[in-house]
Amino acid sequence: MTVTAERGPGWAPEPDPGDAGRRVTAAGRMLAVLDAFGPRHRSLTLSDIARRGGLSLSTAHRLVHELMAWGALERDGEGRYSVGLRLLELSALAPRGLGLREAAYPHLEDLHRATRGNVHLGVRDGTGVVYVEAIRARVRNPVNSRVGDRWPMHATGTGLVLLAHAEPEFQEQVLSSPLERFSPMTVIDPDELRRTLASIRQTGVAVARGQITVPDMVVAVPVLDAGGRVAAAVSVVVEATDERTRELAGVLTQASRAISRTLGPSPVTEL
Amino acid sequence: MTVTAERGPGWAPEPDPGDAGRRVTAAGRMLAVLDAFGPRHRSLTLSDIARRGGLSLSTAHRLVHELMAWGALERDGEGRYSVGLRLLELSALAPRGLGLREAAYPHLEDLHRATRGNVHLGVRDGTGVVYVEAIRARVRNPVNSRVGDRWPMHATGTGLVLLAHAEPEFQEQVLSSPLERFSPMTVIDPDELRRTLASIRQTGVAVARGQITVPDMVVAVPVLDAGGRVAAAVSVVVEATDERTRELAGVLTQASRAISRTLGPSPVTEL
Repeated sequence: MTVTAERGPGWAPEPDPGDAGRRVTAAGRMLAVLDAFGPRHRSLTLSDIARRGGLSLSTAHRLVHELMAWGALERDGEGRYSVGLRLLELSALAPRGLGLREAAYPHLEDLHRATRGNVHLGVRDGTGVVYVEAIRARVRNPVNSRVGDRWPMHATGTGLVLLAHAEPEFQEQVLSSPLERFSPMTVIDPDELRRTLASIRQTGVAVARGQITVPDMVVAVPVLDAGGRVAAAVSVVVEATDERTRELAGVLTQASRAISRTLGPSPVTEL
Repeated sequence: MTVTAERGPGWAPEPDPGDAGRRVTAAGRMLAVLDAFGPRHRSLTLSDIARRGGLSLSTAHRLVHELMAWGALERDGEGRYSVGLRLLELSALAPRGLGLREAAYPHLEDLHRATRGNVHLGVRDGTGVVYVEAIRARVRNPVNSRVGDRWPMHATGTGLVLLAHAEPEFQEQVLSSPLERFSPMTVIDPDELRRTLASIRQTGVAVARGQITVPDMVVAVPVLDAGGRVAAAVSVVVEATDERTRELAGVLTQASRAISRTLGPSPVTEL
């Protein structure tokens, strides 16, 4: 397997420290401390945090200690800080996060067992997709499938499905933003993407090859809430040499319907 | 199955609004907004948040909007607020959270498949245990096994293991605090618990029956980091009529060793 994008879960643009000058409120400065952490910055010293958060050392020191007392941060024996378990506990309350995962899990497990591929459950957040569950095949590339990962919509199966069913203005907003290329096969041409989105709406299924890693293929379908709106998307990633596209679409659709039956009305309609 | 404790994941004492008067810093008021959410309070109105956080409506309004812009909160069509996905993304960076889960997952899946019980991976946080992974048997009680759940140590298999290997002063601190009874079988007598902890240290295995739900039995063992310190505990919950205690201890110990081999030195030594 060729991993063409080593950035993996680190796609999300990490905050530009230059931005932090705009953090004028006290609450904003606290969020700047949390924003200092990212997939490539999981363990930071106090001065890392101050620099990345655009804060003075004394402000960073005070806020870090307040966040540590609360459980949002932890400190290791070498004085480096990392994200603490209070945030896992809080994030478990997110209706579109671990709550959705909870409803979907048995069906995702079935899907994983039936396909032996990587299985993702993704929801739209801002202009990206966040994985609320990721079950990995052991033999497969571990880079791209972690709970909490954020990816751009144009490059992932779940993202393409969510984008295809989003409001037209939102689609244009995404298509007119800079689209990153993760592999030589990542489609970044807006016209080609528009045709892809139309085809996804028509067939109900997204099929994409090598968008992030070559030679992978992803098949994805929407998950509807009780009101018939697209609440999430579910995908399976297999080797592109796998010729089971139709079969995969079938088992995905079954899983998606099973998940839908467990969902109430969409918990969040304002994004 | 008799569920004797309907509190489920709602054990963690939710903040007493009366406490919030002590939130004198701006950062503290922001944390008070987040603290307003809990397992039994996943969806709140603005005035719920103000009341539970001990904040004025206008302060709550300002902070809620700041947290919403950042992604920590989301608002639904009815104007109710819930926890947002930015917190899931952040919590995925916790080395003792989804990071540990990541290393352990394939072994927990094996354990689940071998035992058909509920499988938990728990770490110590404050005076409780937080589940960083929970794989549920479909036929079993869904109440007590969710990622991000926080439970008291004396009532859970993982908690008893973590407590047995904690420093003596910490053990006494926990044993001298009020110990909640979740079922008629929950052991809350400090002397009996001290004997239990000694036996866990001697045998390497915790076995407890009906501590939270009757008629369940839990078997749990420690997971060591590369430095030989107890970094986590893994447990399996089965029906108490199941006579496989020794077999379960065997497969748990295998899984624990397999997880240990994937761990580096403990990421966090100061708790």
